[in-house]
Amino acid sequence: MNTKPLTCQKTVIYPGTFDPITNGHIDIVERASRLFDKVIVAIALNNKKNTDFDIGKRQELARTALASLPNVEICCFSSLLVDLAQQKGVFVILRGLRAVSDFEHEFQLAGLYQQLEPRIETFFLMPAAKNLYISSSMVREIASLGGDVSSLVPSVVQMALRELYKC
Amino acid sequence: MNTKPLTCQKTVIYPGTFDPITNGHIDIVERASRLFDKVIVAIALNNKKNTDFDIGKRQELARTALASLPNVEICCFSSLLVDLAQQKGVFVILRGLRAVSDFEHEFQLAGLYQQLEPRIETFFLMPAAKNLYISSSMVREIASLGGDVSSLVPSVVQMALRELYKC
Amino acid sequence: MNTKPLTCQKTVIYPGTFDPITNGHIDIVERASRLFDKVIVAIALNNKKNTDFDIGKRQELARTALASLPNVEICCFSSLLVDLAQQKGVFVILRGLRAVSDFEHEFQLAGLYQQLEPRIETFFLMPAAKNLYISSSMVREIASLGGDVSSLVPSVVQMALRELYKC
Amino acid sequence: MNTKPLTCQKTVIYPGTFDPITNGHIDIVERASRLFDKVIVAIALNNKKNTDFDIGKRQELARTALASLPNVEICCFSSLLVDLAQQKGVFVILRGLRAVSDFEHEFQLAGLYQQLEPRIETFFLMPAAKNLYISSSMVREIASLGGDVSSLVPSVVQMALRELYKC
Amino acid sequence: MNTKPLTCQKTVIYPGTFDPITNGHIDIVERASRLFDKVIVAIALNNKKNTDFDIGKRQELARTALASLPNVEICCFSSLLVDLAQQKGVFVILRGLRAVSDFEHEFQLAGLYQQLEPRIETFFLMPAAKNLYISSSMVREIASLGGDVSSLVPSVVQMALRELYKC
Amino acid sequence: MNTKPLTCQKTVIYPGTFDPITNGHIDIVERASRLFDKVIVAIALNNKKNTDFDIGKRQELARTALASLPNVEICCFSSLLVDLAQQKGVFVILRGLRAVSDFEHEFQLAGLYQQLEPRIETFFLMPAAKNLYISSSMVREIASLGGDVSSLVPSVVQMALRELYKC
Repeated sequence: MNTKPLTCQKTVIYPGTFDPITNGHIDIVERASRLFDKVIVAIALNNKKNTDFDIGKRQELARTALASLPNVEICCFSSLLVDLAQQKGVFVILRGLRAVSDFEHEFQLAGLYQQLEPRIETFFLMPAAKNLYISSSMVREIASLGGDVSSLVPSVVQMALRELYKC
Repeated sequence: MNTKPLTCQKTVIYPGTFDPITNGHIDIVERASRLFDKVIVAIALNNKKNTDFDIGKRQELARTALASLPNVEICCFSSLLVDLAQQKGVFVILRGLRAVSDFEHEFQLAGLYQQLEPRIETFFLMPAAKNLYISSSMVREIASLGGDVSSLVPSVVQMALRELYKC
Repeated sequence: MNTKPLTCQKTVIYPGTFDPITNGHIDIVERASRLFDKVIVAIALNNKKNTDFDIGKRQELARTALASLPNVEICCFSSLLVDLAQQKGVFVILRGLRAVSDFEHEFQLAGLYQQLEPRIETFFLMPAAKNLYISSSMVREIASLGGDVSSLVPSVVQMALRELYKC
Repeated sequence: MNTKPLTCQKTVIYPGTFDPITNGHIDIVERASRLFDKVIVAIALNNKKNTDFDIGKRQELARTALASLPNVEICCFSSLLVDLAQQKGVFVILRGLRAVSDFEHEFQLAGLYQQLEPRIETFFLMPAAKNLYISSSMVREIASLGGDVSSLVPSVVQMALRELYKC
Repeated sequence: MNTKPLTCQKTVIYPGTFDPITNGHIDIVERASRLFDKVIVAIALNNKKNTDFDIGKRQELARTALASLPNVEICCFSSLLVDLAQQKGVFVILRGLRAVSDFEHEFQLAGLYQQLEPRIETFFLMPAAKNLYISSSMVREIASLGGDVSSLVPSVVQMALRELYKC
Repeated sequence: MNTKPLTCQKTVIYPGTFDPITNGHIDIVERASRLFDKVIVAIALNNKKNTDFDIGKRQELARTALASLPNVEICCFSSLLVDLAQQKGVFVILRGLRAVSDFEHEFQLAGLYQQLEPRIETFFLMPAAKNLYISSSMVREIASLGGDVSSLVPSVVQMALRELYKC
């Protein structure tokens, strides 16, 4: 009768910087929310990397963009991902894959996590073809040069970018 | 109250040729059996590619090797994977990833499946580091030259290989 | 007054096996036909590789599929690509790129061609995202298993595949 | 009678930071100048990335290095590449490819541009084998440590580097 | 006083099919012969893969092509590479790397060998840029279509190819 | 009688930033120390990149971590690697390979070095599977967030990291 443990394992953590959340991230979260009972979107504070949006704004944008998905929870973390997993008791990590370079980096990370915490399981999902070319850094660059990002991010993020770059 | 549909989605199909099943495949199935309620190991008949083991033997080896996992089902299919998915009503496909070249091929396949059947969702798992270098073709080559495959396949497969290559 | 030589260079050769021509190939030819004055689609006889369609049928399908493009010419060749280039006096080769594995292979080929014939210039185009996952071999596999290839090839190829695989 | 539009399409934009222009860039421009009627070398201002040479110096070096090619025009831009394309009425973008990692990044960019401006067509050329290992960042690193860059950049750039790094 | 064991380790095995030996292989052997005391070129019988040259001819061509290098030994093997290593008491394997796809395959092999025989050490060398695009299969294809392979293989191999393909 | 020159060539340079030295680096040095008579671990000053440990500390950590290997020498350099090679009279460079992205970068570097100094020979070794996922930057990130790095670095580095990040 291992219904309980199985139910636990149906929660996944989707970690990232989300600076800001894009249609590519939302695509992945939507897919995961259909596969699992609960998706925890975990926003890394990232003290070292300078982010364009602060942690509060990144969280607010993710929350608004994902409001329609009832089984999605947003949280922030400033620790190691492994510590967050232990604290939440959730050892299933979700990562999006767009390209071979993504894959390499994720591969290294997944191997390292398994070394640090053997219970951790990383699985990967691919966004739809139309979202394969979107990254937060590209979105920021396009927006900062006054480009149209309406096909890349939800409208709430579009407004936040416009305000940030005054355009 | 969408408990029913969620339960359906907790079944995954893990397709392959399994000629023969290796410790790498078993590693992936074990991980998946902890993440999902049911794992369907789907062995492709593969009329075009010559296999060293016939479909009956490949199924028997997989069944024996995975006997200890109660929520794993073995089946064969000679149709498109998309047709199998529709017939089983299971649209979640599991694939193992070992290397960049795997990833590229899987990426193409996942994109193509989504084009043929938009409900299909492919997700990826990585085996443990010690299983990263195992493939069925390597196992067959080593065994056919009289090498020791005891760290690469379960003992039942080891015996089947010994019989096949008379060594 | 180098108008003549410039005009010559505006013809490109697009070589391949085209077994059969797909929407991915057509996408590339259409793009090239807007960039250059003339596109020569050069179908390799490929004595060594067994093709599912014979050279006559492959040529007929390409001709029908590309009939609406006035500046496209179809030809066959059984020699080295370098010889075809010299015979036609056209040293600009066009290749489609879909993925990293494509790229690697093309890279090797382009380097080799330049070594064999320094006048040869290879350039690369990418198909639209919806055509990134299409390859002739995938199309043949799907069609041979009775799958629907209507989004992958033009209708004339779809009919030819149906006839070939009796489905 | 679509001679006019065809003529328009024979102009290409070759964008980059050119900090500084190298023999690899010059190789690509020379190839392109033989394939097309006009090549616009478009130097990105790149406010965010710190460049070692300012925009004026980068333009001057490119102009001198490419002076012998009559159908090459140098310009600077501080907008999105897509905006430059619209302003110039030139939708054919040229990019150089040296390695798989280049390819991946270019692939993402080309996909993104097509999403932002469907008229944009990106094509790729490969430099000669001897120029495959040259990048502006490598050139700067070697020059800043007093190394000999005479086989990597034209002499005008070599002098500019010597002056910049006082060696 | 571990001079003896150190001396042993200065022998390396360079395994391959060599069907036929190319300038790329020779480049690697020359480099290795300067780094190590002895290089054993080990030609795999390869019963499964059909080779264009039989094992005797492949050995003869390698012997002639490498005759000027005194510390190179040619041998054939029909066993696992691991068995050859144990039989020769040489656990250092040399492999050439030309491209990312090579690398992936070699990576898998090196990992597998280490699993089968922990004493095995694989190291990699890169040929010169002009030899990066050469492979035995390309050489065979070009020669079989009557192309000029004089820049790709030594003259003894060129003659053997001419005889084989009657051209 | 070229015993002397051969003996010279049995020394290799293993260059890097070593900020700090990890079990992955040590693995590579150990393998090299069995293949060659002498291994020079060459720590780059790296004025441009900010390092977390200064050059003195990086040298001290490497020296302590490698103390048990008698044929290993530690040195620092602030010049081009090519200059160090010329100064030491050692033209064999050793690099570790963990992943495809490593490979690409190393490939570019090796090509460039050969262009700058034709005597330079780069060869590559792979660490054991358990060390494939370790990099200095990952180690720093994990340690700075208070994570356990005991399986990734020797104890002397672990202590230095604890002191640096006050945890």
